[in-house]
Amino acid sequence: MATEKKHKLKVIPLGGLGEIGKNMTVIEYGTNIIVIDCGMSFPDDQMLGIDIVIPDITYLIKNKDKIKGIILTHGHEDHIGNIPYLLKKINVPIYGTKLTLGLVKNKILEHKIEDASLNVVEKGQTINLGCFKVKFIQTNHSIPDAVGFAIDTPIGMVVHTGDFKIDFTPIDDDVIDLGTFAELGRKGVLLAMSDSTNVERQGFSASERTVGEKFIESFKNCESRILVATFASNIHRVQQVINAAVIYGRKVAVSGRSMINNIDVAQELGYLDIPEDTLINVNDLKKYKDNEVVIITTGSQGEPMSALTRIANNDHKKIQIKQGDLVIISASAIPGNEKTVSRVINTLYEKGAIVYYDALTQVHVSGHARRDELKLMLSLLKPKFFIPVHGEYRHLVQHARLAEELGIPKENTLIGKNGDVIELTSKSITKNSTVTSGNILVDGLGVGDVGNIVLRDRKLLSENGLIIVVLSTEKGTGKVLAGPEIVSRGFIYVRENIDLIEDSKFVIRKALSKCQETNVKEWNNIKMAIKDALSSFIYDKIRRNPMILPIIIEVDNDKFDDDNLFEKLESEQFDFEEILH
Amino acid sequence: MATEKKHKLKVIPLGGLGEIGKNMTVIEYGTNIIVIDCGMSFPDDQMLGIDIVIPDITYLIKNKDKIKGIILTHGHEDHIGNIPYLLKKINVPIYGTKLTLGLVKNKILEHKIEDASLNVVEKGQTINLGCFKVKFIQTNHSIPDAVGFAIDTPIGMVVHTGDFKIDFTPIDDDVIDLGTFAELGRKGVLLAMSDSTNVERQGFSASERTVGEKFIESFKNCESRILVATFASNIHRVQQVINAAVIYGRKVAVSGRSMINNIDVAQELGYLDIPEDTLINVNDLKKYKDNEVVIITTGSQGEPMSALTRIANNDHKKIQIKQGDLVIISASAIPGNEKTVSRVINTLYEKGAIVYYDALTQVHVSGHARRDELKLMLSLLKPKFFIPVHGEYRHLVQHARLAEELGIPKENTLIGKNGDVIELTSKSITKNSTVTSGNILVDGLGVGDVGNIVLRDRKLLSENGLIIVVLSTEKGTGKVLAGPEIVSRGFIYVRENIDLIEDSKFVIRKALSKCQETNVKEWNNIKMAIKDALSSFIYDKIRRNPMILPIIIEVDNDKFDDDNLFEKLESEQFDFEEILH
Repeated sequence: MATEKKHKLKVIPLGGLGEIGKNMTVIEYGTNIIVIDCGMSFPDDQMLGIDIVIPDITYLIKNKDKIKGIILTHGHEDHIGNIPYLLKKINVPIYGTKLTLGLVKNKILEHKIEDASLNVVEKGQTINLGCFKVKFIQTNHSIPDAVGFAIDTPIGMVVHTGDFKIDFTPIDDDVIDLGTFAELGRKGVLLAMSDSTNVERQGFSASERTVGEKFIESFKNCESRILVATFASNIHRVQQVINAAVIYGRKVAVSGRSMINNIDVAQELGYLDIPEDTLINVNDLKKYKDNEVVIITTGSQGEPMSALTRIANNDHKKIQIKQGDLVIISASAIPGNEKTVSRVINTLYEKGAIVYYDALTQVHVSGHARRDELKLMLSLLKPKFFIPVHGEYRHLVQHARLAEELGIPKENTLIGKNGDVIELTSKSITKNSTVTSGNILVDGLGVGDVGNIVLRDRKLLSENGLIIVVLSTEKGTGKVLAGPEIVSRGFIYVRENIDLIEDSKFVIRKALSKCQETNVKEWNNIKMAIKDALSSFIYDKIRRNPMILPIIIEVDNDKFDDDNLFEKLESEQFDFEEILH
Repeated sequence: MATEKKHKLKVIPLGGLGEIGKNMTVIEYGTNIIVIDCGMSFPDDQMLGIDIVIPDITYLIKNKDKIKGIILTHGHEDHIGNIPYLLKKINVPIYGTKLTLGLVKNKILEHKIEDASLNVVEKGQTINLGCFKVKFIQTNHSIPDAVGFAIDTPIGMVVHTGDFKIDFTPIDDDVIDLGTFAELGRKGVLLAMSDSTNVERQGFSASERTVGEKFIESFKNCESRILVATFASNIHRVQQVINAAVIYGRKVAVSGRSMINNIDVAQELGYLDIPEDTLINVNDLKKYKDNEVVIITTGSQGEPMSALTRIANNDHKKIQIKQGDLVIISASAIPGNEKTVSRVINTLYEKGAIVYYDALTQVHVSGHARRDELKLMLSLLKPKFFIPVHGEYRHLVQHARLAEELGIPKENTLIGKNGDVIELTSKSITKNSTVTSGNILVDGLGVGDVGNIVLRDRKLLSENGLIIVVLSTEKGTGKVLAGPEIVSRGFIYVRENIDLIEDSKFVIRKALSKCQETNVKEWNNIKMAIKDALSSFIYDKIRRNPMILPIIIEVDNDKFDDDNLFEKLESEQFDFEEILH
């Protein structure tokens, strides 16, 4: 081991710092790399049209031969969502608990990846990955089977909490293994990384079990149908809905693809205890009275295509809201989703439902440790060095201050950014360099083909629309053969603004004639002249800045005729069938 | 008066129901109309590129001869923002308290309206408007000079609270006139309309004065610069910043256009008490030490162009964040603004500032009554009929339930929608019909020229971008002279996806040749064929749905030559200078 110690330990966050989402952290020593989590995030309001965001893994591709494995803390998308995209680039073994890997398996099968190496690790178990010994430590979170890691490295112990909370009465009775965290602290922790999400919230988070009590109370004298929307991965929450349903003799129907999938996986792997004859098909709802059913759905974030949103909007084929239905939205709005959630709640009210949600009732608890829990964790671990993780910049700063209050010297805490190469010795923590990192945008099947220019155009188009100006000119002479024609989209009601469009054509002709007078012949310059003239005219008239797109199409009168088109088709170099399929 | 009683009293909300914003309510009896408030709202996340939203006032234009006046509860944008647009259509007298009209005056001057009839009414005063006697009743809100109305109508007393809270220790010592509300209740209120905004919040709101105490506490041992961002109209908040600054001998600089304007108006009208030599110019900040200044700014909602956002982003010409600056965001995020506010906070932290904001500290209180205050108001007024106002649908429902809890029979409460014609007699409340109402979108100088089709296009463009396909054809023969050319925006990096674009051209040519084979000659059909073929090709390839816009430009080879352009210019029917200015 003595020779090994000549290296510094590198910690390289590729995601999850300065953001909530796409968690991914590289731990590197010499020729050994392990990766903690492999998540995605959802696009922010600037990333128009983007489906999901994944971390840039250029660094891992370059160093793929060093990678001993990916270790997963739990099965949420922001911790496993990048796995399919990563596996398409590099094939590395993946280690996680049973439920986590069950969810990973579903995900990679959707991506038609079949040769992945998925290795189940028991909670409490230690595995060897290169020079690292990794212990999987039971934690509590809003999904079962969550773990933190104690990583024994050649220079000392590194602990990563994963996303966690401290729940003394969890649904599966698996209380977070505080004993192990305490023991690690006693033996000496070189570096701790801990979840910062809820650092702004005072006190201790309530137990998941309190939500179940609220369900039972809500179901108690209810004579109407009950719908409960929650996160599909919150298996314990689903269990508690089922428990309450069973108590009051209600059958349970499930709506929403991800909810059905997750319940399937959880049931198959033994994470859900559902008495026989409890689950019914949505099609059979009509066979039961209102007070005999509960419907569990997706859509707690007001997602436009989710079951609950479709139900609220009368767009769901099988379920419509009836007067008096009780709808429980058992979740809080993730920042950025407030408006969509609010819209669904209003629509449900308009349809006559009674809605229980965050603002009024206690039908949700968070899965992230609040301030006092974070204090407890740091007090147990007593790390020499500390890197707050999983949070926006402000959360990281506040978590760092909390550590300082608890006696960790300020200079021993490092607030990192994605891409930082943080180097540790047994005596120091520093950042000296960075590696490639960032957001890769996924839009449909395209990974990384939408970037800043495309997004900037989408934003401009979304705010102002566009005006297309088409001219046909003769090749060689530059003579204008036809146009200007104007087509606009997202700009103005053309029918009610004919004058503005006609005036615009005049402005363009004027600009063209000026080009001719001043002998401007270069296409780009002509286009620029059209753009400038039209843009100031429109701004002057109605104070708007639509995107203006002049297109000049050149006609070669000598060359084209009807048959040419077909000749060209036949001479194409590529096979038509091939490009279509 | 006996003859008058043959009419029903009509209450017609034109805005403010089922939404937070654009408050406007018509009160009508026979040939008498008064209008309570005349507000605007901010666009929601679906109204891409829209600047503001105003209510449809078709009904008022049709009935303009009946209108005796507009009465204003207070000077917030959602109560006065539509005044310039309304005055451009109909000239009616406006009644409000001094500060409210001061803010209105500023606003209409910006719109170059000079002949408005603005009539100052004192709090406590009663004015006659047609058959109505309107008493202006002192309330408390997050702007000084707010009032509610007691409207004596031929069939009974109507009370409208306006936006209000109950503050026993307001900054100007003008406690809400509970005595008058109580007296009205004792004499008998036929109908009450009350603010529903904060019905979801338990308890009693804290006094505005508590924020001042927090300021003093925060300023106390602070050695760095202090920046305070708040709503420009919250004059009492500004006063409290100034008070704290004066206590600790700090000068005050102001940044942000609306903040400067509102402070000017408030000072001129005597609503701000600023000791001499307290205000300094932003340019002079450098003459003072860090612990000698406070900067009051706009931008508490993270608005992109606001002073605070520009300061955070290093885009402000005069103010940059220094390490250790204390920034107090004295506001809470209005729903929908959470992300932008959060972004500013993170950026400030990254620049080394310490930030106090809602989540961590008590540097803001709401101006809207919470549940217990709403209970108190309803208990004082004891109205026969009740219409909850100013709230999303869920707020209205919950306010209605609250009224029921307080003993107002369920059937006596009416949850209305904008445009409802609510008819009252001394014994009944019903809604039987509706009038035109809705959102008029203002984009730049255009009022109402952006509607659903334009917005739908903006949304589609923002999510998927567009592909333009241009063809030049010969007039008469339909022969393709040039193209297809493809131009895309907001779709994909073209340079890195040349193949996709080339393949797309091939698909278009194939579609064209099929049109030719099957003798499809109608332009629209050809366009449709191009659209269909390209759209399925693109979806198949990368699972995206860009807007596809085929443009066919027809060339009349017999007609056009170089000189034509100029002939056409000279023969234009309209005057070029005229359309440009």
